[in-house]
Amino acid sequence: MTVMRRDGEMASRIYNFNPGPAALPLSVLEEVKEEFLDFKGSGMSVAEVSHRSALFEGVLNDAVTRLQRLLKLPENFKVLFLQGGASTQFSMVPMNLIPPGSSADYINTGTWATKAIKEIEILKKPFSVIASSEDRNFCYIPKNFIVSPGAAYLHFTSNNTIKGTQWATFPNAGSIPLVSDMSSDILSRPFDPIPFGLIYAGAQKNLGPAGVTLVIIREDMLARAPKDIPTMFRYTTHAEKNSLYNTPPCIAIYMVQLVLKWIEENMGGLDAMERLNLQKAELLYSLIDNTDFYTGTADSDSRSKMNITFRLPDENLEKKFVAEASTNGMDGLKGHRSVGGCRASIYNAVGIDAVRVLVDFMKEFSRKNG
Amino acid sequence: MTVMRRDGEMASRIYNFNPGPAALPLSVLEEVKEEFLDFKGSGMSVAEVSHRSALFEGVLNDAVTRLQRLLKLPENFKVLFLQGGASTQFSMVPMNLIPPGSSADYINTGTWATKAIKEIEILKKPFSVIASSEDRNFCYIPKNFIVSPGAAYLHFTSNNTIKGTQWATFPNAGSIPLVSDMSSDILSRPFDPIPFGLIYAGAQKNLGPAGVTLVIIREDMLARAPKDIPTMFRYTTHAEKNSLYNTPPCIAIYMVQLVLKWIEENMGGLDAMERLNLQKAELLYSLIDNTDFYTGTADSDSRSKMNITFRLPDENLEKKFVAEASTNGMDGLKGHRSVGGCRASIYNAVGIDAVRVLVDFMKEFSRKNG
Repeated sequence: MTVMRRDGEMASRIYNFNPGPAALPLSVLEEVKEEFLDFKGSGMSVAEVSHRSALFEGVLNDAVTRLQRLLKLPENFKVLFLQGGASTQFSMVPMNLIPPGSSADYINTGTWATKAIKEIEILKKPFSVIASSEDRNFCYIPKNFIVSPGAAYLHFTSNNTIKGTQWATFPNAGSIPLVSDMSSDILSRPFDPIPFGLIYAGAQKNLGPAGVTLVIIREDMLARAPKDIPTMFRYTTHAEKNSLYNTPPCIAIYMVQLVLKWIEENMGGLDAMERLNLQKAELLYSLIDNTDFYTGTADSDSRSKMNITFRLPDENLEKKFVAEASTNGMDGLKGHRSVGGCRASIYNAVGIDAVRVLVDFMKEFSRKNG
Repeated sequence: MTVMRRDGEMASRIYNFNPGPAALPLSVLEEVKEEFLDFKGSGMSVAEVSHRSALFEGVLNDAVTRLQRLLKLPENFKVLFLQGGASTQFSMVPMNLIPPGSSADYINTGTWATKAIKEIEILKKPFSVIASSEDRNFCYIPKNFIVSPGAAYLHFTSNNTIKGTQWATFPNAGSIPLVSDMSSDILSRPFDPIPFGLIYAGAQKNLGPAGVTLVIIREDMLARAPKDIPTMFRYTTHAEKNSLYNTPPCIAIYMVQLVLKWIEENMGGLDAMERLNLQKAELLYSLIDNTDFYTGTADSDSRSKMNITFRLPDENLEKKFVAEASTNGMDGLKGHRSVGGCRASIYNAVGIDAVRVLVDFMKEFSRKNG
């Protein structure tokens, strides 16, 4: 369809505030389209070239190198591209990283952390939930907790897409390795990778399309894996073969590589990315804070810069808001089905122009309906 | 690049005989390209739409319906789209389908079957290898075997891409459910699904791009899963949620849907597909059988219609063959690195025109070098 967008232009592309799969950089999509029948002069689509060809290994290795550069990863961190989403990592982490006699610490900040905890429970591995924000429906990031001495790792979810919360600074666990599900805010800001034993992220928010999962693992963690877990669920399998033990999700990895290139070459890296993301979030939060019509759902100091969650005075107005936004060329503003309300997901690829259009729409909507 | 193809035409697309990822129908690639920035008028790429949107569910459900029709699946078979390739199924099958006190039967026809057997071994589940063609380097499909009474299932690999062997008719196991890895020949011919408990297939040969795995499971098999296996590794998780428990590999599923549509609407379904595949294989095998220059590696009655494996008089000639084919616009003719030799993979999307061009090239090459 051609929609009349909020900015008055007729356009075939809308403003995409979906929580994931989410907006991708237009220039990346255009590049994929451009070379889809003939990838780098191979006479084949990227979907048709062998994963063992120099051509595809070039794509994979470039993606790895760019990630190492963007995240300033020391040499003892391996970058892997796996399948199955963060949901598969919820099990793989405890299967691989808990040595006999050891126990893992978890912090529960809502849905995804809760799911990660459920998997360690199913596996009957020892663990402690050392902090939780369940007492106030996960609307904040816990501040006071004591990491168990000798814990195998401390697991936390860096950003909660559903509740709209985010760790402003990561927990300090001393020498205990951090393990984090960064699916919804990886590459949105720089951070120090040194305290991490493992980082995982489904690609479909900040990295690329659905269908590939980034895993960054510190080499010493690889040695922890017991010998009796299935080959595909062992990190060593994939680390030893540079993510090519079996056929990887080639198109998804290729698109991640293009997104990484876009962050480095078009957006200026993670410092610039963070500045822009802060600006975008600030536009929305300052509007929310300056009206009685919109109410943010997360505590101010725990607010996500990626997923801005808010309520309107009542559910009927929320429905009307989502519907009118849609006819104005803005998609994905409905809150997660488990919590209701509204949510604007403003990942890296959502431009500040899109956020401005949304802010204008929100102002007008509150004026008309307030 | 623009290559001078064997047929004398200058073309930007080559003849693709890769074993997987492999050739895809050109019309499918063109459709993906055409709507890549604006999927069905949504104003978003297929990589950007929510997996919970009516739009994407339409794609998924259409793929399921087409598979049910093409394979004539009875209603008690569920069609799932998972991640992790057949290699993940090697473990998921024994994790889910062996009730306590029961044992599974396996037939070993080479690399992939051997890997499947290794995973049940790692899981320490009871099993028997009731037949193997290892005595002659897996160059044939075993004929005489006795299925263990009361076996949980009989596992076999329908087509061996590396050794170039294929089951002409599937094993008869009476009431014991068959479980088959059909990664490399699914949808290349019709078959009776009734004796099957589970079928799995990585997409990247006959179904679509790498990154999605088809699983077809008979409903009564779902009840077998123990309660203590991780959520993502349980078939019930995915069956209950129509493959949408977590974010699926959307682009890959979408491309599978287009390939299924192509088989139904352009190619005339599986009977027609099989006739064409037989014709293609016959062209190559009759050439091989009528020269001393080329030697087929599989026993005649066990030959694959998908992967035609053959040797030349010596390894230097094989190298020259692969290199000259490449300069003539034919890619992927090198045998698997574990066995050497040559191999032409002629899956559904490899047209008979491509096979004719290859046959002509092979004739000329043997004349010049014989």
